[in-house]
Amino acid sequence: MEDLGIPALDGTPVETDHRRIWQRFAERFDLFRGTPTGLWLADELINVFGVSEKLNGGSAMAIYEHVEAQLKKPEFSPRALFGRFGIHTLCTTDPAGSDLRHHAALREAGWGDRVRPTFRPDAVVNLRTAGWHTHLRALGAVAGIAIEDYASFIRALEQRRAVFKSMGATATDHAAETAFTERLSAAECEATFARALRGDADADDAARFTGHMLIEMARMSAEDGLVMQLHVGSLRNHNEAIFRRFGPDKGADIPLAGEFTRGLRPLLNAFGNDPRFSLILFTLDEAVYSRELAPLAGHYPAVKLGPPWWFHDSVNGMRRFLDLVTETAGLANLAGFNDDTRAFCSIPSRHDVWRRVSCDWLAGLALRGLIDVDDARAMAGDLASGLAERAYNLG
Amino acid sequence: MEDLGIPALDGTPVETDHRRIWQRFAERFDLFRGTPTGLWLADELINVFGVSEKLNGGSAMAIYEHVEAQLKKPEFSPRALFGRFGIHTLCTTDPAGSDLRHHAALREAGWGDRVRPTFRPDAVVNLRTAGWHTHLRALGAVAGIAIEDYASFIRALEQRRAVFKSMGATATDHAAETAFTERLSAAECEATFARALRGDADADDAARFTGHMLIEMARMSAEDGLVMQLHVGSLRNHNEAIFRRFGPDKGADIPLAGEFTRGLRPLLNAFGNDPRFSLILFTLDEAVYSRELAPLAGHYPAVKLGPPWWFHDSVNGMRRFLDLVTETAGLANLAGFNDDTRAFCSIPSRHDVWRRVSCDWLAGLALRGLIDVDDARAMAGDLASGLAERAYNLG
Amino acid sequence: MEDLGIPALDGTPVETDHRRIWQRFAERFDLFRGTPTGLWLADELINVFGVSEKLNGGSAMAIYEHVEAQLKKPEFSPRALFGRFGIHTLCTTDPAGSDLRHHAALREAGWGDRVRPTFRPDAVVNLRTAGWHTHLRALGAVAGIAIEDYASFIRALEQRRAVFKSMGATATDHAAETAFTERLSAAECEATFARALRGDADADDAARFTGHMLIEMARMSAEDGLVMQLHVGSLRNHNEAIFRRFGPDKGADIPLAGEFTRGLRPLLNAFGNDPRFSLILFTLDEAVYSRELAPLAGHYPAVKLGPPWWFHDSVNGMRRFLDLVTETAGLANLAGFNDDTRAFCSIPSRHDVWRRVSCDWLAGLALRGLIDVDDARAMAGDLASGLAERAYNLG
Repeated sequence: MEDLGIPALDGTPVETDHRRIWQRFAERFDLFRGTPTGLWLADELINVFGVSEKLNGGSAMAIYEHVEAQLKKPEFSPRALFGRFGIHTLCTTDPAGSDLRHHAALREAGWGDRVRPTFRPDAVVNLRTAGWHTHLRALGAVAGIAIEDYASFIRALEQRRAVFKSMGATATDHAAETAFTERLSAAECEATFARALRGDADADDAARFTGHMLIEMARMSAEDGLVMQLHVGSLRNHNEAIFRRFGPDKGADIPLAGEFTRGLRPLLNAFGNDPRFSLILFTLDEAVYSRELAPLAGHYPAVKLGPPWWFHDSVNGMRRFLDLVTETAGLANLAGFNDDTRAFCSIPSRHDVWRRVSCDWLAGLALRGLIDVDDARAMAGDLASGLAERAYNLG
Repeated sequence: MEDLGIPALDGTPVETDHRRIWQRFAERFDLFRGTPTGLWLADELINVFGVSEKLNGGSAMAIYEHVEAQLKKPEFSPRALFGRFGIHTLCTTDPAGSDLRHHAALREAGWGDRVRPTFRPDAVVNLRTAGWHTHLRALGAVAGIAIEDYASFIRALEQRRAVFKSMGATATDHAAETAFTERLSAAECEATFARALRGDADADDAARFTGHMLIEMARMSAEDGLVMQLHVGSLRNHNEAIFRRFGPDKGADIPLAGEFTRGLRPLLNAFGNDPRFSLILFTLDEAVYSRELAPLAGHYPAVKLGPPWWFHDSVNGMRRFLDLVTETAGLANLAGFNDDTRAFCSIPSRHDVWRRVSCDWLAGLALRGLIDVDDARAMAGDLASGLAERAYNLG
Repeated sequence: MEDLGIPALDGTPVETDHRRIWQRFAERFDLFRGTPTGLWLADELINVFGVSEKLNGGSAMAIYEHVEAQLKKPEFSPRALFGRFGIHTLCTTDPAGSDLRHHAALREAGWGDRVRPTFRPDAVVNLRTAGWHTHLRALGAVAGIAIEDYASFIRALEQRRAVFKSMGATATDHAAETAFTERLSAAECEATFARALRGDADADDAARFTGHMLIEMARMSAEDGLVMQLHVGSLRNHNEAIFRRFGPDKGADIPLAGEFTRGLRPLLNAFGNDPRFSLILFTLDEAVYSRELAPLAGHYPAVKLGPPWWFHDSVNGMRRFLDLVTETAGLANLAGFNDDTRAFCSIPSRHDVWRRVSCDWLAGLALRGLIDVDDARAMAGDLASGLAERAYNLG
């Protein structure tokens, strides 16, 4: 990004004064014109915080003070905003080794199922995760299972899924660089896992084991009813300088070309027709929307399509998604909209963008006579909430 | 597809009562909102059968009775509808081993060239087709040629093409998983074909032989003038459970990423500049429209682009196609529109969708001053029928 | 292209009578309806040459005479048109071995920096260029360096870059079939270059050497400040008959699928965060716009995106580009518009198309409330000229 740069790669200290960061950001807020980030933030300032000026260098500090004052009020506490935002359900993603203590606390505080965990075992499934042995020990410890081989690894995962489910989870989440799946033999599983335990697993081991574990996770989902989400196609930590200075997952992820047709075939042939199984697919490669994802969702009873993800969670991205998948997949095979924001106050904006784009899209269909107004009304309700509630069993 | 499911994969009998199937379908006709299937069917009921109610669970049986009554009238016989629909030419696709007896009967009945066969040799060209030897025997029998080697195989194909042509055929049709083409040496052809006859051809043999035969088919087209159609990119029988229970080609086909630039180069270097040759390309990967197909059609005299195929035979699919290919390929290098429906009564709807979408697209060009109204009028006629008539030599 | 054909592949002489060529072209000018070529030419005739009739077979000769008469007037000399067209800067691309004598002449004639050279070393960087040794000798001769090994090759390139810069160059230009980059060891560089000098470099040598040299060019750009342009994805000389009869680069180039995420990673990890370095990327594969290019430009400080290139330098191509990249990359990471025409008189039309498309796009954003009118006005100025001036340091 021009001008904002990447901070402090030259070794100078990262700026930590919030006021100075905000001032500098506001001065170049023009860089975000026409971007979803710019849209969300502008909308949040107006509709969450009641700001009436446009953000720029001149208004930056007044807005900062105003927002700071608002945030001190009890009606701006996270729990108050949760209610004001009308959030139906908020799902966190939690590693397989999590003890879910915060979820337990929320349940004790009477929050019921409004905040739910999501089982995300990537760190132990991917044999090449940095700190894999540590993640594995955490999983074994919390499960009370000594993970000494593939069989005990599977038992520990099954145990945690049961616990997650008892704490309200209705879904799991899995990230993979590709959609490659392949069933390994029992002997291969044990041998590969043993190599990983010894620290000897190579890239090929890791890729094949991930491909096997995706099928294994589908098997568990068919058995325990947790909806399986699969996010495919991000090359993580693309910028090595960022990785070295700040560690993993700092935003330096760049998408890869996607391939689901051959990749998912083993998984879908095992569980794609299983009425107990539900698989929600997400991609960063829009070329697969109409080519692969929509036909797969239109064909396999188990497959649904997640909303446009990450870079494509935007006005144009949503429009393209709806235009590209719905004719083939059918609206009922979409999982509606969920945001994956880390910015709590952006939640209303993000859902508002989706509702506006999808209603604009429906209006276009109705105007051209492709659907009638009764259809449009029903579809609007489904897009706004019905599809997501059904896809994630949140009825 | 949610709710309609895939019937009877658990071994229960497939529903065969047409009324019950129709009732169940109508109850969930909402699943087809915004899809081409929904659009065609709604339009057929109104414009072919004179239905005035919207299809749903409540109206299902009344509509069923109404349509059944209509179908008993002589003016709803297939031949009567053929006239009412204003069908210029209907082309069937027929295996290389077909004796074309039904075409002969139609010609005797005075139908002339209104129904034409199309030469589709996939079953014998693809060495790994289930029942390849049976298909080959049928070809040999109908051609009166003992197919004992590659040379006699080629002679039999040439003989059948001549017969197809004499029965009105103006085109051939070829499906391939990829657009890979490669000229094999005479010795390789004979050796590969001999392995296939012995049942020893492997996947690599089959892929290379198909790639060779596409060039051979181009050679025959240059010689006999049959227009060559090539449909690329479907992974057939993706769902093994469907395949095991119902056999091949039951709709469980999922597209693959396409590559034409390198793949077709050997074929195009052999015949792409040949004024006697015409090749019409179809893809299921919209990413290749602007990247590969439009530049190839714009460059090679022999190449034309077929209309959006299969999943993309839809309102949005057509719009994308026109927007993505015409600027580079030029309208004159499109083959216009042909539907590939199996549902006879959907023919008017499908062509009506194309005409409406293409006229809407032209109106947009004219409104923006990119063409004038005289241009638009000429282009509308070409899109509606002129391009297809010229591309398929149906003048 | 139907009817216009590819001239004289059968060995007949190429038509050389300009009047007959023009008459034939005008008779089939309908073939260019809805294409950028048609649009540019129609616009040039009206707005550059003052033609008032539509071009067709009937008007062809009158228009020819009119244009010919105009071209004889002093106000239609290239230098007069340069002024009338309001051209800010015209950059040529020149081989590494060029002595830039015409640029020197223009500078002596007082043209200053209005015409600048661009350093394009493809012919010597690609070890398999036809006539590589000749190009290399020309480079050595003009640089006054005996190129006997990799080290002297690098010195000669550095010397020429310095001369180009002294003659006004602000950029370099590089074409590659793929975006593959890889740092070779010093020993590999020397060994590969030695093989090339002996005429022994194979395709793999050439691909790896090109991948290495792109990083080396990035290194030089970081050091000397020349902006690096990279055009990726054209398979040159696809049509062998054209190549044999007319030689290389006669328009028979067909795009390939693109991959930048893995390919550019070594280059970007070396220089992508370097504040001295600027890399402008061009693609012929629109599938990478939103998948790879926009995320790369949004992330790496050094990366900007060039305008839609070649086949995509069109009304729809520009619209797709703006819709697909801006939300993720941000407008400030675009390089604005530059045409790469060989047709001098098409320059105003090409820029006019860009300005109209980008203003129409901005109007749509403003109308939907995604930006306000102040934003739109600033963005319009940037798209029209500001971005290009800043990207190429032409301020």
